[in-house]
Amino acid sequence: MQAQRGWIKEALPEVDERRRVWEAFLDGVGYEAALAGEHERARESLQALVEGRERQGEVWLVGAGPGHPDLLTLAALRLMQNADSVLYDSLVSDRILDRVRRDAERIYVGKKASHHTLPQRDIEAELLRRAQRGERVLRLKGGDPFIFGRGGEEMEALLAHNIPVRVIPGVTAASGCGAAAGIPLTHRDCAQSCVFVTGHARADGVLNLHWPSLAQPGQTVVVYMGLGQIGVLCQQLIAHGLPDSWPMAVVYRGTCADQHVVTGTLGDMPQRVQKEGLSSPVLMIIGEVVHHRGVGAFPAFNAFASKEEA
Amino acid sequence: MQAQRGWIKEALPEVDERRRVWEAFLDGVGYEAALAGEHERARESLQALVEGRERQGEVWLVGAGPGHPDLLTLAALRLMQNADSVLYDSLVSDRILDRVRRDAERIYVGKKASHHTLPQRDIEAELLRRAQRGERVLRLKGGDPFIFGRGGEEMEALLAHNIPVRVIPGVTAASGCGAAAGIPLTHRDCAQSCVFVTGHARADGVLNLHWPSLAQPGQTVVVYMGLGQIGVLCQQLIAHGLPDSWPMAVVYRGTCADQHVVTGTLGDMPQRVQKEGLSSPVLMIIGEVVHHRGVGAFPAFNAFASKEEA
Ligand SMILES: C[S@@+](CC[C@H](N)C(=O)[O-])C[C@H]1O[C@@H](n2cnc3c(N)ncnc32)[C@H](O)[C@@H]1O
Ligand SMILES: C[S@@+](CC[C@H](N)C(=O)[O-])C[C@H]1O[C@@H](n2cnc3c(N)ncnc32)[C@H](O)[C@@H]1O
Repeated sequence: MQAQRGWIKEALPEVDERRRVWEAFLDGVGYEAALAGEHERARESLQALVEGRERQGEVWLVGAGPGHPDLLTLAALRLMQNADSVLYDSLVSDRILDRVRRDAERIYVGKKASHHTLPQRDIEAELLRRAQRGERVLRLKGGDPFIFGRGGEEMEALLAHNIPVRVIPGVTAASGCGAAAGIPLTHRDCAQSCVFVTGHARADGVLNLHWPSLAQPGQTVVVYMGLGQIGVLCQQLIAHGLPDSWPMAVVYRGTCADQHVVTGTLGDMPQRVQKEGLSSPVLMIIGEVVHHRGVGAFPAFNAFASKEEA
Repeated sequence: MQAQRGWIKEALPEVDERRRVWEAFLDGVGYEAALAGEHERARESLQALVEGRERQGEVWLVGAGPGHPDLLTLAALRLMQNADSVLYDSLVSDRILDRVRRDAERIYVGKKASHHTLPQRDIEAELLRRAQRGERVLRLKGGDPFIFGRGGEEMEALLAHNIPVRVIPGVTAASGCGAAAGIPLTHRDCAQSCVFVTGHARADGVLNLHWPSLAQPGQTVVVYMGLGQIGVLCQQLIAHGLPDSWPMAVVYRGTCADQHVVTGTLGDMPQRVQKEGLSSPVLMIIGEVVHHRGVGAFPAFNAFASKEEA
């Protein structure tokens, strides 16, 4: 950036103004572009700042992890403390939101009590609108933004309008629930692969999964958003060759204080879940890894609680 | 714990000694057992402390994330600052180890230059030995401990000897590499499922994967540890029905400063990887999600770097 000092000094004779511009630059996407060798983009950003055009807005797609605030990453925490506004899902808990900068605007876009979700298009429009007026917008999502989180679609929608996007991965529900329930997702003896699927049915009510691929021994199947279809799910896996007695666990709000784990089999789980009165969000872990569960290894939901937070 | 005060006061008339015991108790597994309602175990732990028997050792199986230190969780960081000793893998970078408590003992158990790994059994024996002499042992693993990390086996080996184990999930390489390369792992239009497999061949050299399940459209395949078998891998997926032109990305050291992303197809990737001279660790992402890559969205490896660390 040495080369830029000259013309900037000419354009902005006041020391204070120059300092303001450099600070804004170091804080924004221009500096990152420079570091990545994208000099053209860096120079444009600088020019915009010098000319007093709006600060360039950006969107950060950030994974908040499975629920426990200690499972935030350092990167997520830092961005939470720098955002102008935060759009968050129903999976993002209050204890996590507590860590967002006090004066950031908070916009809830998750499921309402009425089970209506702000349509995806409206969320994208809102992100765009805010970024275009110069805000640094944090899009905070449960788990990882790129696993059943619509993160890819939001990224594309924003890039189509040249809004800079950063993506911060998070601990996905499968990892969070596995750890908190003491169930490994892979295991040398019985699970050489692990498949994540959505149990969300299509608009026509059909659960469109490739059953032969899922009903494989030597594999762990993790189902996101599957509670409503648990009956069909278990039945189809059995119909495609897995035994009735194939082990399965259902984890309600894994890593959270009210976590609840139910274990059973493909044959009896739909009934068990009903008897326990489980509601969403739950994650299902299906496969012989459930037999390797480390029960009693640790006080389950307290697996990583710190003293202060217990 | 109110009920315990009486006999402890009798056993330890000195205030200072009692304070030491309570502090140790609050710091250990006994307190967590109490919180979880396991009063018997809590009481035993307290008794051991009062009688001056060894502090109970424990093992923490902790995911360190894909490489960038900002992708550590707050829980991981806290335990790194409390451990007596740390056993770590080759995937755990120096910048992450820098954050471990200064005076903790560090034991490297990853691959040596000679490509020999400390046998898994020896690692488990070392964890056990240290925990049994009262250490709080941090087993720090790349990514998530329960995804291709042998975490399940270590947990079982320790539990078999009644060593308390805590498992802290981490950001797995798939999430880290996806975010850092701008490639979503699921996408409404083209990937309703995502399967993680190991590309590590068996001792007899055979790559034992269920190809028909993997060669499915509408799915993302993520291969861990697959570089050595990339030729067989691409060839088998084509032989089982995916087109030559099926998109694929190979991510070398995703999220790290020297990250490198190569995109191509099943048909040309083995050659490309050779031409680029890629070495381990790499993660492969196979599927149409690669076409949704947000190129230029963000300076790739700098996606979440902070100014200070850039
Ligand atoms: C729209 S998906 C989002 C997944 C998220 N992006 C991730 O990577 O975990 C929501 C589903 O994730 C699962 N889920 C998320 N957090 C969970 C938790 N703490 N316990 C159980 N399931 C959870 C549930 O299946 C829920 O219906
Ligand atoms: C023994 S496995 C451990 C996986 C780890 N437990 C996880 O959840 O990511 C090691 C493999 O993970 C993948 N891997 C881990 N970190 C990576 C990174 N930063 N970039 C690319 N691949 C990575 C590579 O395929 C490597 O060979």
